[in-house]
Amino acid sequence: MVVVMEERASEAQIEQVVSRLVEMGMDVHRSTGVTRTVLGAVGQGHPDPALIELLDGVHEVLRISEPYKLASRTFKPDNTVITVGDVRIGGDEVIVMAGPCSAESEKQVRTTAAAVRRAGAKIFRGGAFKPRSSPYSFQGLGEEGLRLLRDACNAENLQLVSEVMDASQIDVINKYSDIFQVGARNMQNFTLLRELGHVRKPVLLKRGISATIEEWLLSAEYVLSGGNTDVILCERGIRTFETATRNTLDIAAIPIVQKLSHLPVIVDPSHAMGRRDKVAPVARAAVAAGADGLLIEVHCDPDHALSDGAQSMFPSQFDRLMAELRIIAPAIGRSICLEPVARRGWGA
Amino acid sequence: MVVVMEERASEAQIEQVVSRLVEMGMDVHRSTGVTRTVLGAVGQGHPDPALIELLDGVHEVLRISEPYKLASRTFKPDNTVITVGDVRIGGDEVIVMAGPCSAESEKQVRTTAAAVRRAGAKIFRGGAFKPRSSPYSFQGLGEEGLRLLRDACNAENLQLVSEVMDASQIDVINKYSDIFQVGARNMQNFTLLRELGHVRKPVLLKRGISATIEEWLLSAEYVLSGGNTDVILCERGIRTFETATRNTLDIAAIPIVQKLSHLPVIVDPSHAMGRRDKVAPVARAAVAAGADGLLIEVHCDPDHALSDGAQSMFPSQFDRLMAELRIIAPAIGRSICLEPVARRGWGA
Amino acid sequence: MVVVMEERASEAQIEQVVSRLVEMGMDVHRSTGVTRTVLGAVGQGHPDPALIELLDGVHEVLRISEPYKLASRTFKPDNTVITVGDVRIGGDEVIVMAGPCSAESEKQVRTTAAAVRRAGAKIFRGGAFKPRSSPYSFQGLGEEGLRLLRDACNAENLQLVSEVMDASQIDVINKYSDIFQVGARNMQNFTLLRELGHVRKPVLLKRGISATIEEWLLSAEYVLSGGNTDVILCERGIRTFETATRNTLDIAAIPIVQKLSHLPVIVDPSHAMGRRDKVAPVARAAVAAGADGLLIEVHCDPDHALSDGAQSMFPSQFDRLMAELRIIAPAIGRSICLEPVARRGWGA
Amino acid sequence: MVVVMEERASEAQIEQVVSRLVEMGMDVHRSTGVTRTVLGAVGQGHPDPALIELLDGVHEVLRISEPYKLASRTFKPDNTVITVGDVRIGGDEVIVMAGPCSAESEKQVRTTAAAVRRAGAKIFRGGAFKPRSSPYSFQGLGEEGLRLLRDACNAENLQLVSEVMDASQIDVINKYSDIFQVGARNMQNFTLLRELGHVRKPVLLKRGISATIEEWLLSAEYVLSGGNTDVILCERGIRTFETATRNTLDIAAIPIVQKLSHLPVIVDPSHAMGRRDKVAPVARAAVAAGADGLLIEVHCDPDHALSDGAQSMFPSQFDRLMAELRIIAPAIGRSICLEPVARRGWGA
Repeated sequence: MVVVMEERASEAQIEQVVSRLVEMGMDVHRSTGVTRTVLGAVGQGHPDPALIELLDGVHEVLRISEPYKLASRTFKPDNTVITVGDVRIGGDEVIVMAGPCSAESEKQVRTTAAAVRRAGAKIFRGGAFKPRSSPYSFQGLGEEGLRLLRDACNAENLQLVSEVMDASQIDVINKYSDIFQVGARNMQNFTLLRELGHVRKPVLLKRGISATIEEWLLSAEYVLSGGNTDVILCERGIRTFETATRNTLDIAAIPIVQKLSHLPVIVDPSHAMGRRDKVAPVARAAVAAGADGLLIEVHCDPDHALSDGAQSMFPSQFDRLMAELRIIAPAIGRSICLEPVARRGWGA
Repeated sequence: MVVVMEERASEAQIEQVVSRLVEMGMDVHRSTGVTRTVLGAVGQGHPDPALIELLDGVHEVLRISEPYKLASRTFKPDNTVITVGDVRIGGDEVIVMAGPCSAESEKQVRTTAAAVRRAGAKIFRGGAFKPRSSPYSFQGLGEEGLRLLRDACNAENLQLVSEVMDASQIDVINKYSDIFQVGARNMQNFTLLRELGHVRKPVLLKRGISATIEEWLLSAEYVLSGGNTDVILCERGIRTFETATRNTLDIAAIPIVQKLSHLPVIVDPSHAMGRRDKVAPVARAAVAAGADGLLIEVHCDPDHALSDGAQSMFPSQFDRLMAELRIIAPAIGRSICLEPVARRGWGA
Repeated sequence: MVVVMEERASEAQIEQVVSRLVEMGMDVHRSTGVTRTVLGAVGQGHPDPALIELLDGVHEVLRISEPYKLASRTFKPDNTVITVGDVRIGGDEVIVMAGPCSAESEKQVRTTAAAVRRAGAKIFRGGAFKPRSSPYSFQGLGEEGLRLLRDACNAENLQLVSEVMDASQIDVINKYSDIFQVGARNMQNFTLLRELGHVRKPVLLKRGISATIEEWLLSAEYVLSGGNTDVILCERGIRTFETATRNTLDIAAIPIVQKLSHLPVIVDPSHAMGRRDKVAPVARAAVAAGADGLLIEVHCDPDHALSDGAQSMFPSQFDRLMAELRIIAPAIGRSICLEPVARRGWGA
Repeated sequence: MVVVMEERASEAQIEQVVSRLVEMGMDVHRSTGVTRTVLGAVGQGHPDPALIELLDGVHEVLRISEPYKLASRTFKPDNTVITVGDVRIGGDEVIVMAGPCSAESEKQVRTTAAAVRRAGAKIFRGGAFKPRSSPYSFQGLGEEGLRLLRDACNAENLQLVSEVMDASQIDVINKYSDIFQVGARNMQNFTLLRELGHVRKPVLLKRGISATIEEWLLSAEYVLSGGNTDVILCERGIRTFETATRNTLDIAAIPIVQKLSHLPVIVDPSHAMGRRDKVAPVARAAVAAGADGLLIEVHCDPDHALSDGAQSMFPSQFDRLMAELRIIAPAIGRSICLEPVARRGWGA
């Protein structure tokens, strides 16, 4: 914390600030300039800067950022590479996760899994618990949905990522899923994050729609501090004044996070856009910007999906996108599933 | 839902849209204009507008707002007045709720309760569970804190509002508190809201920092639809580009909500500002704008508070604010505790 | 500027930063802590912080705010009171400026001026040049409009505020108007601001819809640095994600500006809301929060106004608002035109 | 305009709305549903929706978007391709515009022009008039700067784009520059836009930092309606709550604009990021998303640039970026200057 005193601050005011900082457990360095005095305060405590700002003679308090430690590149200079089965997230390969919003039926799950696998996805996404904004909407199949998703992954050699809404669901999801997804609305559900610090599977942490990058990394820190070192960050758009898309995808978050942190960062273009015809341009942009992966909604029959149909791609659109991404990835020394799986879909 | 077709939309395209809407369970009215065709669709379903927007020939889909019913003034034209003990929220009197961020000790709770009561507050606020962004910060006293708060309320003839973080805490909080407070981060925790629809006590629902007024009313609808008709809305600032205050208090939300809904709406200036020296001007503004109440952090010794010290008012500041509010309220035909309690504080 | 070095920054990196700062004309104070080195840099130059941030070993650069001097309370502790005719802006009296968006006809101007004068306004507002977003809309009456506005002010003993869109209009507006109004879109038109630094009349400077308070004060500095010490700041709402009102009025800007600056600050609730039925609550809030004045659109026949009709108040609504404000102002030791003008309107 | 009546609207209220719309010159279609009446209004007028919203019995007014005509794809389905010398903007080739913020000296201009030309840029950027936020900063070389920029373009076979700040500068810039650049702060300077509607050279129109895509297209309409059909749109970031970058680049604006309009759209990553180390990832993303071009700040010696040094790339960084872009462009069927100019730089 750096405390900038007012130009006309008296010696007594400066001393009061110093003694308050010391009382809070901080070491204080004082620089007396021609126009102002500046106090640098360091220590183990995390005093609230506003408490110091209220003191007489204080012009402003500048907070030194990065209150996270374990998530920072200062703490761990090398990239974290997360291994899930035979998939490595954060390495040279750009990993694509794809699948439907929710598991709806065995046929829907199996058909979609086969389609995304054929196109080159390595991880299958799908939800089983869907608390929706309307109590009358489809609420998901629950554990039966998880079973369907797991079976499809086993058949197609895919890993599974599925959302956990609440700490009480951790056990059941842990039985089926390879990765725990934490949604944007739960990014600051500290009870849930603390519990996920104790599981032995990776956590995919979406950015909240009004969360700064610093707050997002602080939430990752919560998981890491519990002992779980495998956190995947996922940018999915922030809320701004622009309403032409559902959210504004913050494309610069990718290089920013990669500078600040060693954790892999992926992008979910489906939720940011809200409409399937805008997903491909933004997905290509994410890979070009250096994202470590993508999370994309694909449905075998999006027009009749029980949720998120408008933003789910048709399998044929997803095929075309994957072909485009294979051209883009080498521009930055990455690859995307160079050898797509030949003829191995469900029913083959 | 109103579907605006493109100027050059073909008859076949129009018919495809109509049949898709009918398939979704909607009745469709068609207006053929010189330049465009406009389709009005009404019905019981809530089809996703984006699904229609993706169809050929569609220029745009305009959503008719107010998907909430029970919360709307159309449904219930008269103001809802909520009775808690001898306090009526939403009536002519502006109700002030005040107290510390968290219960810390018996002395702190009792001293603060006495002070706010003397100044004219009718409801005591205080938290017992404090999941903080850092796992090393003060986490609240738990049930012991609730007991201290309850005792102080009993001694001072105050009602109690305390925050519920999670559905699992409902039972214990229900034993002590008169009102359940739902924090901004939980505004869209639909699991929690659904449970609170079944309790028999009022719910104070804070607006999320990135929630529109419509989303906030939809969250209230969740509680109302469970059978609990007593929801108090609480504006506490939204996140914008301006960083001079912690959040930007949306003062116009008060008249907007009062036009759209019959529910009482109050303001929390403490969290919006984040610093006690900005609380009074904004509190006065809220009452002048027509707020039904205020929720204010007051602490008997804010400089040594275990949480939110910088934004907690000193009792003497709160006294002065209450005096100012008593002058303002009559400008709009309201009152604020016209007969402050004479000499009845704790220890008197 | 305060430069925070990375924890692992080498001595050579620190020295490179120091020598770069010295090269830029800064004096550097060095604090070597256990974990980090912090460098305080002060001087006459205004080096771009980003240039330092790009250097190796730099964790972040914290900017000391308040690059404005003349506008700051540090420079001038006492409130600036601006005298326009017999009106004092920034003193104990809350000054209300009211009138139509544009001058349309002699009758409209005279009727409206008489009405606002009778209700207690001291300054008449009205525009003559109206470059609109559509080239087909009413563009204002030009100099003829200014003449009508001036005549009405003379008849009613009102002062006049009128908008200047461009430096080329300064001369003609100067002939008729007592105050130059600068619109939100021109807040950073530095060419215009520089010219207004040389005029001898007050400047009413609206905040841009995406301007921070700091940027707004910097724009005021531009005028002040030209020698014109009479700047009135006007908050009129910022752009946020909320669309229930046209803009989000930043009510906290009033106390914030009053702490940072000695200049008077007023509020324009008409443009922030965009609808007349929301103007009164927000106008009351502004006075309660401590605003030095209001700028309100009033029209003798708003339903047939050539511009801004929806946000213009009827004279009867304005009368009622003024009565409410007279109750509120004393709460903070202010008054509003305590002796309204008896029977002196145009045509009386 | 679509008017949605309240559920309990009376017949008299409906008739009042209809007659008010007719009075405003609109044709009205009425749809009477079971729950509500909906009125569709079309016509030549552009009545203010808020005027109708204020009428009794009106639930809300839905505005049919796209008040622009000439800029819309409905009006002109095929892409506009703008020819400047031998360069075609909006065709298959992605056009890169690069150069310094400002012309500073002959050597700086010539060296930078040669470097960007060698790397594959087709258009040179550079400013001559620089009204800065501080009156003490470098204000540009004026016409002498334009002459230097023109000479360098002639020597290197580059086209020139340079910023016009004010209508009074149009003549002098027209003598030297091939494209008029309009900065973000001037996006709604309608006086300037109207004048640029009459020039015979293309206009590069930057998006304002708080402008919606619709407002941006409306500003383009202003130029088009004056008879100038050559407008290039330029996304350069919007203001949001995130402060990790100077602005938030709205990557989705590219596909959105391409759907709504036939005009070419390019991206300026330098101003959005504010730091050169973030420019390349975002520039790659823009091309992958389908941008028709880029506008990038490059300086032969950025550490000593008189303005924007921190966000200006070194020529070597720009070379590498161009090599990456040449790999990405074919993914979407585009190319970037496939035959870079061999050995033709200044001084060679």
